[in-house]
Amino acid sequence: MKISQHAVKVNWGDTDQAAIVYYPNYFAWFDQGTTALMESVGLDWDTSTRKFSIVGMPIVEARSRFMGPCRFRDSLIVESCITEWNSRTFRISHKILNRGTAVAEGHEVRVLAKAHPDDPTRILACAIPAEFKEAFE
Amino acid sequence: MKISQHAVKVNWGDTDQAAIVYYPNYFAWFDQGTTALMESVGLDWDTSTRKFSIVGMPIVEARSRFMGPCRFRDSLIVESCITEWNSRTFRISHKILNRGTAVAEGHEVRVLAKAHPDDPTRILACAIPAEFKEAFE
Amino acid sequence: MKISQHAVKVNWGDTDQAAIVYYPNYFAWFDQGTTALMESVGLDWDTSTRKFSIVGMPIVEARSRFMGPCRFRDSLIVESCITEWNSRTFRISHKILNRGTAVAEGHEVRVLAKAHPDDPTRILACAIPAEFKEAFE
Amino acid sequence: MKISQHAVKVNWGDTDQAAIVYYPNYFAWFDQGTTALMESVGLDWDTSTRKFSIVGMPIVEARSRFMGPCRFRDSLIVESCITEWNSRTFRISHKILNRGTAVAEGHEVRVLAKAHPDDPTRILACAIPAEFKEAFE
Repeated sequence: MKISQHAVKVNWGDTDQAAIVYYPNYFAWFDQGTTALMESVGLDWDTSTRKFSIVGMPIVEARSRFMGPCRFRDSLIVESCITEWNSRTFRISHKILNRGTAVAEGHEVRVLAKAHPDDPTRILACAIPAEFKEAFE
Repeated sequence: MKISQHAVKVNWGDTDQAAIVYYPNYFAWFDQGTTALMESVGLDWDTSTRKFSIVGMPIVEARSRFMGPCRFRDSLIVESCITEWNSRTFRISHKILNRGTAVAEGHEVRVLAKAHPDDPTRILACAIPAEFKEAFE
Repeated sequence: MKISQHAVKVNWGDTDQAAIVYYPNYFAWFDQGTTALMESVGLDWDTSTRKFSIVGMPIVEARSRFMGPCRFRDSLIVESCITEWNSRTFRISHKILNRGTAVAEGHEVRVLAKAHPDDPTRILACAIPAEFKEAFE
Repeated sequence: MKISQHAVKVNWGDTDQAAIVYYPNYFAWFDQGTTALMESVGLDWDTSTRKFSIVGMPIVEARSRFMGPCRFRDSLIVESCITEWNSRTFRISHKILNRGTAVAEGHEVRVLAKAHPDDPTRILACAIPAEFKEAFE
């Protein structure tokens, strides 16, 4: 399975008054990890939306455990890979490392969305194409 | 001139490690103040985009002075009003009050954007309709 | 069990280019729901840190399922209550309702943190005081 | 005058439903540009707070003009330098370039803050030390 690595520097604005990272930012970094993983296999946004006629990859679940704090100016690595395929959903697992130590570990479950054929304002989760899956092997 | 008031509660996530509000959030509150001002004169997003065939109100300038800190759980009021009209731009002035004291004061300059007639991916700043201006008087 | 309700208005800045809410914002709303729940039982930040000699309530786990999109100007309700107590951790469950329909459902697991007696730069998860638990009954 | 360059990649979460960057993010990037400028002259956070006995560099004014949109996956450069010194304030000018074209241009005015000698919960803007100024020449 392809694993991508995405570098993140903790910015001043990521901290809160406890002087550690405000936790929703970890999910923003998971989301960036997914972008990085897609790009690492040649499926950047323009390519994947065009190639598979999708309008996006909406999230249906996200979860993280937090094992240690991150602070202003820490240099993090987000490691991301796909760990589960279902007919219409897939799971991207993420691990965030701070100087080699895992500080957050979790996953996102996403779908591939197409425009509804009868109503362009709605979307449908489509069956995951074999070619999409193969890109991550 | 119509003046709107928009209430904001400072959330934990708005603070930084200095235990005060991270300053870009003030501009998010200016933006919310503009939304509140538009709604207060009956020009919410759906109405204004439909009525004036615009696709949005892009920002061309923003500025603020910061006179005092805001902290977690402070209750703020954002006062907003239009203070200048030009042919294609207008200025929304904002004042943020914390327990009656002004803690930030500034403005946004915005335009009304229409889709470019020859290229739907581009936008054009249009002349401000008289009916738009009159709504704020 | 005490249940709190916290109102959220979806702001322009909460949306992404898919014209729906960017998902880390739901976790920011969970965090706000926890603040609202604490305040609803008389344990606002100042009171709880002083009364229990704690320095905060760090997160150790967060999870959400996302059942439907939220859009600019939607009015949401975040319902929060504590659903599990362990010796040193507790679970706050959150449900986000958009016009009465649940659009996100999840939880946070948090600890009560005290300063480490030997090293003020470190924190320790302390045993949850009976008086803390009783406040939510 | 020392000029620093700070690279920014536009993330999905930086966009709004107009499919362009939500404008308060530009100020977050100005703030990051200031961090990068400080680090480029050897005055990272730890060093500068220790060396000059300051507790931070609070903002007193921020302003930007916005000349063009930025979109998801754009690679930006934030160029930052100090353009004005006063006895207690200084101005950091920022220019954001998208593929070589300036898309935002503005400044921040900041002070160096010390703890108030009589009340540690308050801060005072101190006279800017010559050694601080010289670092940027």
